[in-house]
Amino acid sequence: MPVLPNVKPGYLQDELSASPPTHSASFDVTMKELRTSVIPGMTHWASPNFFAFFPSTNSAAAIAGNLIASAMNTVGFTWQASPAATEMEVLTLDWLAQLLRLPTTFMNRTSTGRGTGGGVILGTTSEAMLVTLVAARDAALRRSGSVGVSHLPRLAVYAADQTHSTFFKACRLAGFDPANIRSIPTGSETNYGLDPTKLLKVLQADVDAGLVPTYVCATVGTTSSNAVDPVGAIADVAAMFNAWVHVDAAYAGSACICPEFRHHLDGVEHVDSISMSPHKWLLTCLDCTCLYVRDAHRLSDSLETNPEYLKNDATESGEVTDLKDMQVGVGRRFRGLKLWMVMRTYGTTKLQEHIRSDVAMAKMFEDLVHADNRFEVVVPRNFALVCFRIKPSGSMTEEDADEANRQLMEKLNKTGQAYLAHTVVGDKFVLRFAIGSSLQEERHVRSAWDLIKKTTSTIMD
Amino acid sequence: MPVLPNVKPGYLQDELSASPPTHSASFDVTMKELRTSVIPGMTHWASPNFFAFFPSTNSAAAIAGNLIASAMNTVGFTWQASPAATEMEVLTLDWLAQLLRLPTTFMNRTSTGRGTGGGVILGTTSEAMLVTLVAARDAALRRSGSVGVSHLPRLAVYAADQTHSTFFKACRLAGFDPANIRSIPTGSETNYGLDPTKLLKVLQADVDAGLVPTYVCATVGTTSSNAVDPVGAIADVAAMFNAWVHVDAAYAGSACICPEFRHHLDGVEHVDSISMSPHKWLLTCLDCTCLYVRDAHRLSDSLETNPEYLKNDATESGEVTDLKDMQVGVGRRFRGLKLWMVMRTYGTTKLQEHIRSDVAMAKMFEDLVHADNRFEVVVPRNFALVCFRIKPSGSMTEEDADEANRQLMEKLNKTGQAYLAHTVVGDKFVLRFAIGSSLQEERHVRSAWDLIKKTTSTIMD
Repeated sequence: MPVLPNVKPGYLQDELSASPPTHSASFDVTMKELRTSVIPGMTHWASPNFFAFFPSTNSAAAIAGNLIASAMNTVGFTWQASPAATEMEVLTLDWLAQLLRLPTTFMNRTSTGRGTGGGVILGTTSEAMLVTLVAARDAALRRSGSVGVSHLPRLAVYAADQTHSTFFKACRLAGFDPANIRSIPTGSETNYGLDPTKLLKVLQADVDAGLVPTYVCATVGTTSSNAVDPVGAIADVAAMFNAWVHVDAAYAGSACICPEFRHHLDGVEHVDSISMSPHKWLLTCLDCTCLYVRDAHRLSDSLETNPEYLKNDATESGEVTDLKDMQVGVGRRFRGLKLWMVMRTYGTTKLQEHIRSDVAMAKMFEDLVHADNRFEVVVPRNFALVCFRIKPSGSMTEEDADEANRQLMEKLNKTGQAYLAHTVVGDKFVLRFAIGSSLQEERHVRSAWDLIKKTTSTIMD
Repeated sequence: MPVLPNVKPGYLQDELSASPPTHSASFDVTMKELRTSVIPGMTHWASPNFFAFFPSTNSAAAIAGNLIASAMNTVGFTWQASPAATEMEVLTLDWLAQLLRLPTTFMNRTSTGRGTGGGVILGTTSEAMLVTLVAARDAALRRSGSVGVSHLPRLAVYAADQTHSTFFKACRLAGFDPANIRSIPTGSETNYGLDPTKLLKVLQADVDAGLVPTYVCATVGTTSSNAVDPVGAIADVAAMFNAWVHVDAAYAGSACICPEFRHHLDGVEHVDSISMSPHKWLLTCLDCTCLYVRDAHRLSDSLETNPEYLKNDATESGEVTDLKDMQVGVGRRFRGLKLWMVMRTYGTTKLQEHIRSDVAMAKMFEDLVHADNRFEVVVPRNFALVCFRIKPSGSMTEEDADEANRQLMEKLNKTGQAYLAHTVVGDKFVLRFAIGSSLQEERHVRSAWDLIKKTTSTIMD
């Protein structure tokens, strides 16, 4: 199967009936339609030749976890609605916090009893951003003496221009004024990480203009180029203004279970919340985003509901966590099981090996790029993503180079033998080569590189 | 296994290790811990003796759909990122729209080509409410000439007091002023449905006070007692003020695939959006909430993002739907597969039979309650939920009756042979008997009723 399918918009409607079937059909009929009509139109994220976006890693343990959770079909909105579902989620989050060496202030339970921090598993980073933005917004409104939301137009939020677009969307969802959503420019001098000095200036200017700095989002491993914002320095600046600091480590958080990458989280003990997505790089199929907050009450103060039909003794005892109060909705799947099964079967050592193996393959690819003088690596590689491009040479202008790289990507993707995505870094059109699809081995990386070289030759000649 | 487990808060932490395992373990070890430590602490939503909340229905087809989606692990944020995933979701939503006899204005594709409406599958009703609230908020801000969100403190939203608590939470998330979130009282005279005359008065009073009516939420089948707000009459009132009308048919929407229940949606052609959750009653395991909007652009105008690395020719052609622009986040599972497999294998006829069989069992239970003069049915049954209680008799006061019903519920739930939840309707403590767990048969309903009668005797004697 080609990684990227060759189908036209609306193709499936033509293959399958536009009207719902009246009568039942056997499972075999359904599977046949799936095989003949649906699968040929899929982009194969599980293919070892998938190098686009960030891979969606997977494992048999995670699939089994999803299968069992689907069959049990439990809805754990409160502890009482399914005690083990809540406790497993809380336990697994505490396990992962230990792997990440998060401070115990982020944990649900510590060796001395129940902690003040807490975690919850959500669907996506966007939801983690949204719920923490709302908690920070409400705290800033209270702090500024707002009557209702009257001060909302004065609140301001901050992130580097490399921050995921979903952050800026989450700010709008939470009602922040678009004019007060700051995207702070970054450049090659910081490898596209947020400069704390610039942040300080922007925050101070806003305060001088009567605004209330409310929330700063720092990213560890941006989607575009894997840039890392300096967590500790950003937290120090934000603390001067009482602003909430969230760390988005969606992708690179997984790498931080290895001691050699953990320094990217230095200073996390001073932030208010952090999220990372095991579905991106920790062998856990979609969806699984872990959010940790330092003070769980700051979240539940904004998100708590208490309808009559959910009232129960356990909740009233105050001894349990009701995970509905840490998310957008009420209903929730048995989210902890999948991640627990991954951590339980692999164990820390194998999970670290998995990260290291992907990083080693990325390093190998980076070396291959370096060794061919038609190409350049555009930003230093931090994890398992290599940002590279055909570099201008001879009479080739920057514009020509952009066009050559765009052509290269299109030709590669049309072969069906590899799928790469692009980004723009410092005005340059850049190819992203992301390692980590679960079936990927060195030979797939080498084949892709051979294909890239060959295809480049057809363009450059 | 008892339906409701008998475990103490923190029990799982004591059974499993508080620290993550360093080394890998076989799948058998993991499954053993699951069986011995986790499953005994679960509330068994799949049990035929589960009558609490709303059941979470399921089927082999849905479980298979989840399994296949987990293994493929595709991330369909844009059409291009997985064409078949997007197209299957769109097709399945259009199938369901036809089953529900929604007007074609809500469909993605009609017999004459691409429609202006659209659907998306989300995790929960809360998310459906949130995204439509944000779209309505932004439209009202534009309409009122707001600079940024300066007019946000003037926008107002409306729902009956029986509306799910998550609606009021979603309003707060979207930044509406808590003082302008109206919960309109209902009473037994409308069977706890929203009275359009009252709604009109509240809306007019707000306009007179300089507020901007922005959004009205109507519920078809409330969680508490299955009350039905009159959709058409509410839409007529809201239209006078240009307010967005959303219909929350999370539970009872599934019943509306049967012609005899469809009248509950009468007037839906005049609303802006409607959501219903097949995970509640359409044999589809969690999570699966279908949101339809009449004008998809009104949603994507507020929710669109366009980062460089997601730019592609298909999106730019305008011929495809990018489902990321109709939800909170960016990443998304292969959400359509599960629902497609259910609809494809069951077919309309079997799905209708499933609804009718549950309703017939609920009617049987209702008849049993009616036939025992110690009890009363508190509100007329609309679907498969029966709200009943021990009624006051002899020297028993209303307070005594509340206490007796509370005791009855606690004793029943402690047996492990049935699990019921409660609500409060018109100041009365009421037991909710919800039919619909997938393995439920008449004999389970009869056994539960016998247990209720026997337990009542021990309380009343």
